Amino acid sequence: MHKIVLIRHGQSEWNLTNRFTGWTDVDLTEQGIEEAKAGAKLLKDGGFAFDVAHTSLLKRAIRTLWLVQDEMDIMWLPVRNTWRLNERHYGALQGLNKAETAQKYGDEQVFIWRRSFDTPPPELDMDDERYPGNDPRYATLSETDLPRAESLKITIDRTMPYWFETIAPQVQSGQRVLIVAHGNSLRGLVKYLDKMDDDSITSLNIPTGVPLVYELDDDLNAIDHYYLGDQEAAAKAAEAVANQAKGG
Amino acid sequence: MHKIVLIRHGQSEWNLTNRFTGWTDVDLTEQGIEEAKAGAKLLKDGGFAFDVAHTSLLKRAIRTLWLVQDEMDIMWLPVRNTWRLNERHYGALQGLNKAETAQKYGDEQVFIWRRSFDTPPPELDMDDERYPGNDPRYATLSETDLPRAESLKITIDRTMPYWFETIAPQVQSGQRVLIVAHGNSLRGLVKYLDKMDDDSITSLNIPTGVPLVYELDDDLNAIDHYYLGDQEAAAKAAEAVANQAKGG
Repeated sequence: MHKIVLIRHGQSEWNLTNRFTGWTDVDLTEQGIEEAKAGAKLLKDGGFAFDVAHTSLLKRAIRTLWLVQDEMDIMWLPVRNTWRLNERHYGALQGLNKAETAQKYGDEQVFIWRRSFDTPPPELDMDDERYPGNDPRYATLSETDLPRAESLKITIDRTMPYWFETIAPQVQSGQRVLIVAHGNSLRGLVKYLDKMDDDSITSLNIPTGVPLVYELDDDLNAIDHYYLGDQEAAAKAAEAVANQAKGG
Repeated sequence: MHKIVLIRHGQSEWNLTNRFTGWTDVDLTEQGIEEAKAGAKLLKDGGFAFDVAHTSLLKRAIRTLWLVQDEMDIMWLPVRNTWRLNERHYGALQGLNKAETAQKYGDEQVFIWRRSFDTPPPELDMDDERYPGNDPRYATLSETDLPRAESLKITIDRTMPYWFETIAPQVQSGQRVLIVAHGNSLRGLVKYLDKMDDDSITSLNIPTGVPLVYELDDDLNAIDHYYLGDQEAAAKAAEAVANQAKGG
């Protein structure tokens, strides 16, 4: 039996200012830092150990991982950073205030961009400073990989190759894997592991900072999954994330 | 022309308590944290950019790197951790107070252990909790690689394969490399790059937290090297490190 642990990064600065974040590289808030530390404490108390960690190229996830490593005293853990675990790219909406965007495009259109499985938001122009091709951290990506806007479907489609090519072989070889990422890249993993359909995954809300454990058999089929710690607290945290989304 | 940057980690907790540290995983002091931030500021002001970083499996080096990454806003930088960049292993002396050790073994013997190029200190037993084979972070190393005590020569001999196999090919392929490590593993790189003899390297003191830049030609011969920032301050910092060593 294999175990992997998923953690969604803690609250970020733009959660507070109610703007579309996506690949914008905002940091954690004080609350986000505390969420990460609390998650680490649950892992430590549960006697978890890891051989390798994976995270995105965005600092709210990386800092969450660093806080977990620091708290668990495993700063030496090998870490791989990949754009494939990045948050969904919100295209031309990135940086816009959610309420203002609803006023401009209408509530219904914004609802579709946010809750549809396969409708991407408006694309970025390639000369836009928000286009990832203009950021040195994505310099090694090919133009076909660089997103200009992503639906949840597109996000999942570019996340999963990393599971199959990198993470799954590690798990099968017996390595204990920690993945610290974002709401939508984690949805991709959860959808696959739990064989969820498109509608179910769009309405799934993963609470921030709470370790989500998957138990897998040798063929990496999910046998069980559960949140560490107080189950009621985890459910409330997921609800809070969901309400925040509705509020935006 | 290629540039690489070396940084020795800032002051650690055991610098203050005057104990042999080696592979003991002590953290930075407040002063060590400030040294790392100051080094990062010099790199930022100098317009440096990196494609990859290398560090050890010890938190005083890793935290120094994290502070540099945070300050330079490059938390996404790929990082490779390796035991080959660890500090010299001080064997059975690790954890002992330096003054007490001198009282027990005599000043002359301790001087030889500390300043000779090729005399290792007393070896650890394999059932000693300080033996690296009993630490999960070294679980993948073979028994022949696991040190029980290292001279400077042994330290350099196990550091340099990492240069030849991993770092040098990256530099030759045009990647901009940052290396954050320890006094003695960095001595290995400096000895090789500057073609120094055994006596010269034992008396070289690298100041903590000050970026040391090497300019290399296409065959990776060192053309030039220099510390960033105030040269007088760097010289004083090196002297302070040297005096601390004498005082111990």
